[in-house]
Amino acid sequence: MRTQVGIVGAGPSGLMLSHLLSLAGIESIVIEDRSRSYCENRVRAGLMENWVAQMLIDTGVGERLKREAMVHDGIFLAFNNEAHKLDFTKLIDKHVYIYDQKEVVTDLIAHRLAHGGQILFEVQNVSVHDFAGASGKPTIRFTHQGKAETIECDFIAGCDGFHGICRPSLPEGSWTGYDRVYPFGWLGILSESPPPEKELIYAYHENGFALFSMRGPDLSRLYLQVKPDEDIEAWSEDRIWEELDTRLQGVRPLKRGKILQKGITPMRSYVAEPMQYGRMFLAGDAAHIVPPTGAKGMNLAMADVRVLARAFEAFFRKHETALLERYSTTVLKRVWKGQRFSWWMTQMLHRVHGGEYAAFDMKRQLAELDYVASSEAASTSLAENYAGLPID
Amino acid sequence: MRTQVGIVGAGPSGLMLSHLLSLAGIESIVIEDRSRSYCENRVRAGLMENWVAQMLIDTGVGERLKREAMVHDGIFLAFNNEAHKLDFTKLIDKHVYIYDQKEVVTDLIAHRLAHGGQILFEVQNVSVHDFAGASGKPTIRFTHQGKAETIECDFIAGCDGFHGICRPSLPEGSWTGYDRVYPFGWLGILSESPPPEKELIYAYHENGFALFSMRGPDLSRLYLQVKPDEDIEAWSEDRIWEELDTRLQGVRPLKRGKILQKGITPMRSYVAEPMQYGRMFLAGDAAHIVPPTGAKGMNLAMADVRVLARAFEAFFRKHETALLERYSTTVLKRVWKGQRFSWWMTQMLHRVHGGEYAAFDMKRQLAELDYVASSEAASTSLAENYAGLPID
Repeated sequence: MRTQVGIVGAGPSGLMLSHLLSLAGIESIVIEDRSRSYCENRVRAGLMENWVAQMLIDTGVGERLKREAMVHDGIFLAFNNEAHKLDFTKLIDKHVYIYDQKEVVTDLIAHRLAHGGQILFEVQNVSVHDFAGASGKPTIRFTHQGKAETIECDFIAGCDGFHGICRPSLPEGSWTGYDRVYPFGWLGILSESPPPEKELIYAYHENGFALFSMRGPDLSRLYLQVKPDEDIEAWSEDRIWEELDTRLQGVRPLKRGKILQKGITPMRSYVAEPMQYGRMFLAGDAAHIVPPTGAKGMNLAMADVRVLARAFEAFFRKHETALLERYSTTVLKRVWKGQRFSWWMTQMLHRVHGGEYAAFDMKRQLAELDYVASSEAASTSLAENYAGLPID
Repeated sequence: MRTQVGIVGAGPSGLMLSHLLSLAGIESIVIEDRSRSYCENRVRAGLMENWVAQMLIDTGVGERLKREAMVHDGIFLAFNNEAHKLDFTKLIDKHVYIYDQKEVVTDLIAHRLAHGGQILFEVQNVSVHDFAGASGKPTIRFTHQGKAETIECDFIAGCDGFHGICRPSLPEGSWTGYDRVYPFGWLGILSESPPPEKELIYAYHENGFALFSMRGPDLSRLYLQVKPDEDIEAWSEDRIWEELDTRLQGVRPLKRGKILQKGITPMRSYVAEPMQYGRMFLAGDAAHIVPPTGAKGMNLAMADVRVLARAFEAFFRKHETALLERYSTTVLKRVWKGQRFSWWMTQMLHRVHGGEYAAFDMKRQLAELDYVASSEAASTSLAENYAGLPID
């Protein structure tokens, strides 16, 4: 097989890149080791920055999003038994959208396949080769339907997530990983019940953080801060609901429902620098992950591929290499701001239990929440990061 | 001796309280264990929030301040070899003032003594008694000029600093201390040389934080982040100047001068809650200290005594106890925001050397500085805290 851009991974970044390239008349092939149905049903992020929704709409893959996404004007901060709304519409004249990552993936797969796009699911034994140097002739090798295959391409896009094979295929010493692991986990449930508010509630409580989110008018996505190595078996349904009630502090009534799913996610910040080597370019989780507190994961991935698609376009249409050469520098500036915001939200909202400064830090966190809720400048700062910093 | 308010400590909070009470027709006596000359020459904070300067002017002790204080429009953040100005005048239409704490103390002592105020210096063996309960009849006992003395008063104001005797005299269990010690110290010098800028430069460098400040056009106050237990003997004058040069990153030339003073200050956050018990009220460092990064120490002390003076006035003039009863609640809300800001500035600007997340945190700090310098909302948030949050 021969294409211009070989894309490893059919998550939001790989699929969106393939879509944007196609609009620019650039060929690509996407390979993915999971099945189509797995990709379309994987529960992940739910919050979309304003410009991402607009990009989906503007590029013709936003029809269902326009009908089904929930538009949010802001978020609530709950602390000291009160809920405070940060109204993004008033502060920065922007909305955010609730539209599940799996719906984005579903829409993009359907659109790509309907428009002649090539996506190969359930590939195995993927490896990447000969991408070193600007004059390399990269290949991607893999097995598909029992047959060994090779894609010859001009560039490889590594969109295969944090555990993918592209980043570890970069030569040792050509990149650095920056890491921070948090002493928290999120116990998340998906529940057949209406959320307590029509917008998200970020709740700070002495027992720990809780997030009251939703995926639909009768489908709640609710989280509790727990230890990263917490035993999920220790959390009966009753215990989960009681703790959610406690941390909601009575600011809204909480309806209980059937728990469809539960799991514990660890919290980590990670960035690989630079995000490119020769003719290999990393995008999304393959290069950086964030703790979920700032709702930045999918949004940073979408920013990467928008920049990368324009750089490929400049290369293939005008033989200009400048945008490709500074791809990593361009996106990392914004990636690190996303990391900063995710760290800041995480440190403000999570209780550090134990340690000699826990009592001071709880008071300081409550003062920070009080300040953010009461200062227009601080509210605006949170809002502009949450809704998405400028992309251009 | 008999007075209405017995004040322990002739620092900025004790003297300003005595001054404000006097304007309201309320009697006070200030006692101080140091000499007048010691108080007038102790090098401490240099930065004054807008409203503090205005309060000094409005209450008739601002004549010399108006002539001698340096008016600053903002501060500079230096990182990645560039200096970025945060222009407070543009952002929030406010200035700050450079006027040394010892000048405030000098002005207040002179004014109090010229207007019949009683300040007893060099007292010894101070103890406080019988302040429990709203109906207590407090006394302050001490030795003055070799003679045992007692002040009988309606209230005691504990303005005797972090190491004073008032806070430890409160009954055990009636208050809680909240504490955070930082793994940093500041090596500070006073140098006979012009500062590198007419406003303060807060510099973040891989080696650590540095602050380029001043006390006059030819008098610099310069600081280097060091370990809290650093041996000052390890820092020759040459080494100090070289390290200051390195951390200034060439953004301005640095003139060297005769070093008049050098010392190392540890960095600590502390709050005692509540700040009152019966007829005893704590103010300033006696109740709370901050790391110097936010320049909040003297300013928080001034806010305490402004609130306390009004509460005493309501009590003595109108027999109203409500303001006194909620003194601690009122001032602590703002004190904790000052603590939050001081912590935030400290964590953003100091290098944590070593530890598994040092590399991530340095990148995150640089992203935070880049964000603060480039976002109007974030700049405004820093500015409104630095120049002083609303006092009423």
